[in-house]
Amino acid sequence: MSSAWLLPEYIADVLPSEARRIEELRRQWLDLARTYGFELVMPPLLEHLESLLSGTGRELDLKTFKLVDQLSGRTLGLRADTTPQVARIDAHLLNRQGVTRLCYCGPVLHTKPQGPHATREPLQFGAEIFGHAGLEADLEIQELALGGLQAAGAQALTIDLGDARIVRAVLAGLPLPAEALTGLVSALTTKDRSLVKELSAACPPGTRDALLALLDLYGGAEVLDEAARVLPDRPALKAALADLRWISGHVAQAYPDVSLGFDLSDMSGYAYYSGVRFAVYAQGAANALARGGRYDEVGAIFGRNRPAVGFSLDLKNLVAAAAVPPARAAITAPWGEAAGLRAAVRELRARGETVLCILPGHEHEAQEFDCDRELVEVNGQWLLRSR
Amino acid sequence: MSSAWLLPEYIADVLPSEARRIEELRRQWLDLARTYGFELVMPPLLEHLESLLSGTGRELDLKTFKLVDQLSGRTLGLRADTTPQVARIDAHLLNRQGVTRLCYCGPVLHTKPQGPHATREPLQFGAEIFGHAGLEADLEIQELALGGLQAAGAQALTIDLGDARIVRAVLAGLPLPAEALTGLVSALTTKDRSLVKELSAACPPGTRDALLALLDLYGGAEVLDEAARVLPDRPALKAALADLRWISGHVAQAYPDVSLGFDLSDMSGYAYYSGVRFAVYAQGAANALARGGRYDEVGAIFGRNRPAVGFSLDLKNLVAAAAVPPARAAITAPWGEAAGLRAAVRELRARGETVLCILPGHEHEAQEFDCDRELVEVNGQWLLRSR
Repeated sequence: MSSAWLLPEYIADVLPSEARRIEELRRQWLDLARTYGFELVMPPLLEHLESLLSGTGRELDLKTFKLVDQLSGRTLGLRADTTPQVARIDAHLLNRQGVTRLCYCGPVLHTKPQGPHATREPLQFGAEIFGHAGLEADLEIQELALGGLQAAGAQALTIDLGDARIVRAVLAGLPLPAEALTGLVSALTTKDRSLVKELSAACPPGTRDALLALLDLYGGAEVLDEAARVLPDRPALKAALADLRWISGHVAQAYPDVSLGFDLSDMSGYAYYSGVRFAVYAQGAANALARGGRYDEVGAIFGRNRPAVGFSLDLKNLVAAAAVPPARAAITAPWGEAAGLRAAVRELRARGETVLCILPGHEHEAQEFDCDRELVEVNGQWLLRSR
Repeated sequence: MSSAWLLPEYIADVLPSEARRIEELRRQWLDLARTYGFELVMPPLLEHLESLLSGTGRELDLKTFKLVDQLSGRTLGLRADTTPQVARIDAHLLNRQGVTRLCYCGPVLHTKPQGPHATREPLQFGAEIFGHAGLEADLEIQELALGGLQAAGAQALTIDLGDARIVRAVLAGLPLPAEALTGLVSALTTKDRSLVKELSAACPPGTRDALLALLDLYGGAEVLDEAARVLPDRPALKAALADLRWISGHVAQAYPDVSLGFDLSDMSGYAYYSGVRFAVYAQGAANALARGGRYDEVGAIFGRNRPAVGFSLDLKNLVAAAAVPPARAAITAPWGEAAGLRAAVRELRARGETVLCILPGHEHEAQEFDCDRELVEVNGQWLLRSR
């Protein structure tokens, strides 16, 4: 039992200085979302597996811890992503006709880490707009994501834009088995040209050319012009390109200091995206800080097919890129029963000051806080003095 | 799949109005604890089962969901209580010599609800002081608990005091099998006189009389005098009664409007308590709002036997008894690309106002917020106007 303190792999305690910074970020995001009119919801950590995984794809299934409910004998899942839960709340519980803005902040759990430095217990913040199919909702979500990341102090942001309809439109109608399609999507995302060639060997020449062309369609704004030139002339493709042009123009206007990028073959992220999708990167951070997009079909399984767009991020990942000033100033006070001392301590705390009462016998210990002042008795009065 | 929205029993979504009130309470508690110098930690939801359950007793084991870690093949537990984790952090990770004050706030999960109206996913807030064996630490914890509950608006508080050493001292040295001891402790807690008689039939007459006397030792301050008269003259008993006298005197002085009660046979709550223990009730609430006490042995399994005292509560339970004013005032603004409009919206949000942009086509929908003002253009200026 000597290793009782060992934690499972990719699971860690968050210790005081980092925990405080994460808490500050959490409040910043919730308060910012609030100023846009996003209402907070708290879905449960545990749900019946079939509702957690409705319409979300195999990847999320593999990421989800399963366990048995002793009360019902049914299989429960620990949520690996909060978005499907929020779609369920919109569809079933709130059941509103108009636009609904919801946000959330809580842990999710993954059976396997998403990368070599990832945690299996991200602290997910996210925001979703339901009920509006127009690009104005996409734009509001991207503005919230970028505004929040800038407020958190993340430096030199890049937003990468794509659209789930593009790869789908190119692959539409192909008589390929499901595994081959999945393999192609994955090869396009990782830009594995030889694998794309191999898997598309049986495709019509036009489709094959389009798939290979997609691999080069990443970079700056010129990508949209190039795509219009080289991709097949299909309505879904044209709509996607026009939407990307509209939204990137508006983002550039609202956030001139954020770099814009496009990647038309990237399908990473959640399988449920159905339209414009985005990822935000900061200088020096290998992983995306935030990911989001449109996913109009997620609520269908819960009985309502509402337009939906949202984003999410991991506060534990963000805290590394964020600049949150530490605030550890504190006041020491002796322990004592004098009414004047106790009143002085109470009053300082009511003003938000941290007052450490030094418990008897601990007068000479080092303090974790930056104790720059102390409460001392001078002529019967309790006064603050610099230390 | 039409019931995909059904949640497991005793598991619920928290919808916007309640979620907001819980979030307000969460911040109040964390900020109040901060003014005492409690540092925030975030232990993980998942741990190896043996570290989660070290020294915590069978009851917590039954409450803990188990699952298998695919990375290691080992059994993990979902925390059903955060205190043992915080003791592990104090003992192993921080490893400080002096007084350490830690607090936390996060979900815990229970295989079975604790009562007919309980949730299986409480949102636990708690605070713990490590490294001080004196009653000053017990007092600080009780003051924090009572002060926080009063600040949350809980009305007509009663603090019930007991001491885990009292029942233990009476039972000490009895040659009873473990199950009989457990049964006796449970019968004492539920004040089941006939069961106490039955289970103590084989005890020496003095012990039996003391056990039956314990059943009547609840009520006001007179209980302590009565206990000194009727309980056996043992050092551990005398120490416990003296401690209860000291701490109740100090609590009465600091919180004259809080009622004091004693219950010397009550052993409910966590099995790890080792000294003074308490529960706080509010008028009209059947369950305790907060429970706490001293548990000096919990860290031993992690390699350090530090004095420890703390308390915890469920914010989802507290919110029903709390008075948190709803703040739903908001401003509506039209959607538009005009620079002046966008600047006005940005500025209002930066001041903390909620500004709902009415997305195109949704102008006539009812709003969930109390939209008492609107942003309108007057002579080329964007101005606020009452609605």
